[in-house]
Amino acid sequence: MGKSDLDVFFKPRSIALVGLPRGLKAGKVFLLGLMDQGFDGPVYPIHPTAKEIDGLKAFRSLDDVPGEVDMAIIMSPKETVMDALKGCARKKVKAVVLYTSGFSELGGDRGRQEEARMQKIARAGGFRIIGPNCMGIYSPDSKIASFPGLPRVPGKVGFLSQSGSLIHLFVHMCGSHMLYFSHAVSYGNSCDVDLYELVDRLYTDDDTQIICSYCEGVKDGEGLVRVMRENALKKPFIMWKVGKTSSGMRAASSHTGSLSGSGHLWKGIFHQYGITEVKDIEELMDTVMAFYHLPLKGEGRVVIVSGPGGPAVSAADAAELNDLSMAYLTDNTIQELKAILPPTGTSIKNPIDVGMSASFDLGLYLDTLDALARDKGVDAIIIVGGGATDELTAQYIDGLVRIRKVSGKAIIAVSYPGFIQDEGLLEPLYTGGIPVYSTPERALGAYSKLVRFHRLRKARGIKKG
Amino acid sequence: MGKSDLDVFFKPRSIALVGLPRGLKAGKVFLLGLMDQGFDGPVYPIHPTAKEIDGLKAFRSLDDVPGEVDMAIIMSPKETVMDALKGCARKKVKAVVLYTSGFSELGGDRGRQEEARMQKIARAGGFRIIGPNCMGIYSPDSKIASFPGLPRVPGKVGFLSQSGSLIHLFVHMCGSHMLYFSHAVSYGNSCDVDLYELVDRLYTDDDTQIICSYCEGVKDGEGLVRVMRENALKKPFIMWKVGKTSSGMRAASSHTGSLSGSGHLWKGIFHQYGITEVKDIEELMDTVMAFYHLPLKGEGRVVIVSGPGGPAVSAADAAELNDLSMAYLTDNTIQELKAILPPTGTSIKNPIDVGMSASFDLGLYLDTLDALARDKGVDAIIIVGGGATDELTAQYIDGLVRIRKVSGKAIIAVSYPGFIQDEGLLEPLYTGGIPVYSTPERALGAYSKLVRFHRLRKARGIKKG
Repeated sequence: MGKSDLDVFFKPRSIALVGLPRGLKAGKVFLLGLMDQGFDGPVYPIHPTAKEIDGLKAFRSLDDVPGEVDMAIIMSPKETVMDALKGCARKKVKAVVLYTSGFSELGGDRGRQEEARMQKIARAGGFRIIGPNCMGIYSPDSKIASFPGLPRVPGKVGFLSQSGSLIHLFVHMCGSHMLYFSHAVSYGNSCDVDLYELVDRLYTDDDTQIICSYCEGVKDGEGLVRVMRENALKKPFIMWKVGKTSSGMRAASSHTGSLSGSGHLWKGIFHQYGITEVKDIEELMDTVMAFYHLPLKGEGRVVIVSGPGGPAVSAADAAELNDLSMAYLTDNTIQELKAILPPTGTSIKNPIDVGMSASFDLGLYLDTLDALARDKGVDAIIIVGGGATDELTAQYIDGLVRIRKVSGKAIIAVSYPGFIQDEGLLEPLYTGGIPVYSTPERALGAYSKLVRFHRLRKARGIKKG
Repeated sequence: MGKSDLDVFFKPRSIALVGLPRGLKAGKVFLLGLMDQGFDGPVYPIHPTAKEIDGLKAFRSLDDVPGEVDMAIIMSPKETVMDALKGCARKKVKAVVLYTSGFSELGGDRGRQEEARMQKIARAGGFRIIGPNCMGIYSPDSKIASFPGLPRVPGKVGFLSQSGSLIHLFVHMCGSHMLYFSHAVSYGNSCDVDLYELVDRLYTDDDTQIICSYCEGVKDGEGLVRVMRENALKKPFIMWKVGKTSSGMRAASSHTGSLSGSGHLWKGIFHQYGITEVKDIEELMDTVMAFYHLPLKGEGRVVIVSGPGGPAVSAADAAELNDLSMAYLTDNTIQELKAILPPTGTSIKNPIDVGMSASFDLGLYLDTLDALARDKGVDAIIIVGGGATDELTAQYIDGLVRIRKVSGKAIIAVSYPGFIQDEGLLEPLYTGGIPVYSTPERALGAYSKLVRFHRLRKARGIKKG
């Protein structure tokens, strides 16, 4: 099958909710998600007895629906899933999201056989299935979501996750840092549509500029390797692969019926095709944030600027441990810094300590930053700081954004958790292309992944993608 | 000198602020800190010309102060520091916090010579110096602090930091998780009082039950090793040692004039004396939180309970990577879980997936937790979850606290950042002895450090300390 048969998942004109519960049960989130996004096509609840659910006319079966149905989301009880799929075939539904669980993730042969049967019904009926045991699609541009409360703002991150709840979690976490999504797909046990097809779809999708994935295991490993090879380094692809230990493998098998594969095998593949690996959800977000905001250029020469001196030493360690280099400043910059900073309680050697009084006297921060941004030997500036009051912090942030804009340099802000009480103050940083991290170590870890990706692209002669 | 000559730093009856600025300059934080804590002894500003500073009568010199001065905090310009120290000797001051910077951290011999001279003056005058280039003491029980805005609540963490701003930062971060301090000391370049003496003081301090330290380097390494050996495993000692790379060593030298020492050497010492090592401020807080709340018992057999299934796979990986074991449940517990949880969309194998509907139907979480807490093969339960509404979340939290209390088991909550909007909801967890982490990986990392400490104590035959 071509790529195009996945398109309808991302832009359905009409949706049936097969087995939608009347009360506040788990399946209800699909309807709430569509209502919350303001999906503007027809939505058809399918229920054996209800006449109406939440103000929408309900139908006894798909056969009774008057119009065409592009996508069906099936949340029927396990026993009736095959019938529901056959109904989709009769109705010529093009895409099925299968929420119902209780198949291969239970272990044993039976679940696998049932999933094979599902795929057979789909093939014969000319439709594709995402799932079972999944939450399906979030595409804010198409106004579809499988949970209420997800941002209505479309963005450039594409996220593929075997876990449905992680979609909710991760989109939510990212939203609070103003990182938005083109598409997020929870694909569960992948009885039909497998990870490699979704990755391929995101590589060719113009709206998606950063691909990331939470993966427990894949059905078609060769397919994935082929897609990775064909698209290597075209876009950043960040992968959180779990099930790396024996405990994790057992857990993956009970969660999505996945065979995880050896950790070493995956490591080799990631290395070969320039896939960025992360180890937990915080590192995933940190890394997405770097790719979202920072320019893909330079050689990873960093300067660390700090008012509070202590964290700067640890930051210098982190730069080296992450294979970044501490920038050597030009004589000219050093002369400028000498003129800006008082002689004691400060340091003009990288990491640069602007001293305790900088939180009152913002010029110390901003003039330093300005001088560093003009130094050709500096690719990125990690700045740990803020003002002594909310008003001073707002001015500090304005200054950072202005210098980021004028210089085009990578500027990365560090704000320790709880340090800036009013997180709303940080917003201009995000809109101004400055990622914000909770520690310099996390900032440098994320930035180093961007630098590695950029180095690989340069080494392989890849221009702007 | 005996230990007792440090005591006055932690319980001064009177304080002189030598060189206190009139306006809002950096040194002003010392006065603001004392006022904020409500220090109830006399405070004497010493200023060459001012008659009064912020409502307090000022004196031209220490000689003019009518009463005794237990502690002097010196923030005079660098050039007048030696005179100020001589004044302390004349006044028979017992403890000096020396804020003024510009000595060994500038590099070269001169700063070191000046610091040697400071120590000589102190020896001759019969007082001790903490600093220079430091912020001194925060002891809420004695109502002293070197910054305003630090909690007035005393607690059981003792923190020793070469960096002054890190005191502010870390106490602040911990406060937002209801972790409180007995003492926090910023000791800077340590011209006289060195880390080993402060560590020794905290080991013998009844109020301090957890010792932690941010360290760039030490003057007297042998002294520190001796204190570590003599007190090994008596209390948890968590150390964030920086300056581990050549970049970090250079930074440490410009920050506090420290010689960092080789990373390998430190690793060996940590290993030998059961010191818990952490790599950044978040891990430091995570680890303190585990020691603060969790019982020091058991064998590190963990169960992971999750509503959202995805993170549980990664948590299982993290358990194994952190040298913890995934608990095997008794048949009895498994039968109970079978009766509690619906057969599909859940898993009764550890990690336990209570299914999507648990956030509506809290019994799924709480009955599961209750059954696990009664299983003798389970030492700790990591629970990822919450209610669908704030009200349900509050009920969920109440349930966790109740089961923690009844069972005495280690219960660890995971709440992804931004997931529970109203962080105030989490308070009963902290007061109920349940630490809260942003990811299961961080929870398991911290818990594993507690388990390692406990194993070492058992192996060396140490009973309750």
